[in-house]
Amino acid sequence: MDSFVIQGIQTLSPAELNAWSDKRLELVEEALSNWVSPDAPAGLGQAMRYAVLDGGKRLRPLLVLAAREAVANGVQDKTLDAAALRAACAVELIHAYSLVHDDMPCMDNDVLRRGKPTVHVHFGEAQALLAGDALQALAFELLTPENQPTTSANTLSHIPDEVQARLCRLLAKAAGFNGMAGGQAIDLASVGLALNEQQLREMHRLKTGALLSASVMMGAACGNISAQTWGCLERYGQAMGLAFQVVDDVLDVTADSVTLGKTAGKDAANDKPTYVSLLGLARAQEYAEQLLHEALKALEDSGLKSAHSLAALAQRVVNRKT
Amino acid sequence: MDSFVIQGIQTLSPAELNAWSDKRLELVEEALSNWVSPDAPAGLGQAMRYAVLDGGKRLRPLLVLAAREAVANGVQDKTLDAAALRAACAVELIHAYSLVHDDMPCMDNDVLRRGKPTVHVHFGEAQALLAGDALQALAFELLTPENQPTTSANTLSHIPDEVQARLCRLLAKAAGFNGMAGGQAIDLASVGLALNEQQLREMHRLKTGALLSASVMMGAACGNISAQTWGCLERYGQAMGLAFQVVDDVLDVTADSVTLGKTAGKDAANDKPTYVSLLGLARAQEYAEQLLHEALKALEDSGLKSAHSLAALAQRVVNRKT
Repeated sequence: MDSFVIQGIQTLSPAELNAWSDKRLELVEEALSNWVSPDAPAGLGQAMRYAVLDGGKRLRPLLVLAAREAVANGVQDKTLDAAALRAACAVELIHAYSLVHDDMPCMDNDVLRRGKPTVHVHFGEAQALLAGDALQALAFELLTPENQPTTSANTLSHIPDEVQARLCRLLAKAAGFNGMAGGQAIDLASVGLALNEQQLREMHRLKTGALLSASVMMGAACGNISAQTWGCLERYGQAMGLAFQVVDDVLDVTADSVTLGKTAGKDAANDKPTYVSLLGLARAQEYAEQLLHEALKALEDSGLKSAHSLAALAQRVVNRKT
Repeated sequence: MDSFVIQGIQTLSPAELNAWSDKRLELVEEALSNWVSPDAPAGLGQAMRYAVLDGGKRLRPLLVLAAREAVANGVQDKTLDAAALRAACAVELIHAYSLVHDDMPCMDNDVLRRGKPTVHVHFGEAQALLAGDALQALAFELLTPENQPTTSANTLSHIPDEVQARLCRLLAKAAGFNGMAGGQAIDLASVGLALNEQQLREMHRLKTGALLSASVMMGAACGNISAQTWGCLERYGQAMGLAFQVVDDVLDVTADSVTLGKTAGKDAANDKPTYVSLLGLARAQEYAEQLLHEALKALEDSGLKSAHSLAALAQRVVNRKT
């Protein structure tokens, strides 16, 4: 792997990253399928599973697992690996619920998501509302298993209380009024307004960045690192999170709906402020590259020796085509 | 207080209960007003505060605090008292969010709540959706403060990790697919259907009972009690929670909208199954009395010496007129 070094830090080639993520995604998909039960009453389970399974790039779970591997630094700990898997799934549930609610008629009124009819189109608005609500609760349920004495058989059910509390703290903050929900409120209020760059950055820091950053920090919370390393990972998460949104804005004008799996050109049609409308396409693309540079610099500063998958994920975020 | 003894357990007179709850509600209202910040962006804070403040009977927070006092048994512990106050507020946030979402046009489409226009009427549907989402996240944020070394100045910010994890576990489960959200899905699917008593009980056990029971158990989690006492409090919570719903069904046909602060007669108009439609009014009223008896018996069996406010709250639940 050491043939891929960018800005002095080790990373993975796209093929290596695919191999790395394929392995992790197998675990994540299996865990999500087990934990999002079809047995929830009155069709709720079906709506929840439809919202979560078989779709999406799973960037947030991969960030959790990559950060966990970075802070583990090669030292095995099954309990903390299991905690990271729960955290990876919890973060994805929050992301999935936000998409369900965001697609509803009173919000973006979108009918297509990941190439499929949106949840409210398929199951009705009331069930979509409830499925989103239940997915948010389930995220916190996943993070707080009842601890039994650890045996080889129940590793996945055990997370130390301290880690449970930290994971809930990070996730609740990132999802709430001073995170994702707050960013969506700004988004809602900003349609048709000319935001300046600072206001646009603030909106995206909350709306998308908070949960992406939290993914990194939740992975980091499944390990013991210094405050200095923690700070570097925060810088990585913030730069990568903002880069994600800048690239999203770019793709909204450069990609088509089939490639995206959702309606392209929608931001412009809805007169929503974006980095492209603010900076123009070329400067938005440059800005994404600059943020990638910042993210990689933060990893370099962290001194972490096993941060190659985090580095490669930041590159994937910026170079993605969908 | 020992002049009020029912079924061999000490309780409070209605006047004593009012005095007891007035004191606790002052703390709860102040804490809610502090924690539900008006500073959430783009009007979200106003919508959240509108949904939470100055309204409601606050039954769930009172149950949390009464259960905490019952398990404390007169022994002071500021840390655990503070944890119980956070739990009391968290449970109320979950209740408030569920009302906001439940009132939305795609659910019950109600325009009146606690005598005021509902959140979506006042702030629009999108903001109501987000406010509900943000209130759920905030509940878990309240339960997971970052622990600093305890000093007299920061007692309210400290909850032991183990207690944080237990509180999140209880709340997430009660709010989610196998609790409140699941019950609402059954409710949604049951309109116009003839449920039998067992199905009706299951719906209400999840929809209303789970969060009421969780209130009791979260209060109990702020203390150390035996598994046997824990089981008795669970029995109390379940009987009281079901009684609450039976009385709700009775009031829907016996009270008027002004007294209730919400639209009366709505269940019948919507062809929703209720205890009154199933059992008739007289037998539904008898059933509520029987459940009160069961709740008080469970308290007696618990052997707790300071359960008088829990006893009085169960009586209030059954004897309430609104």
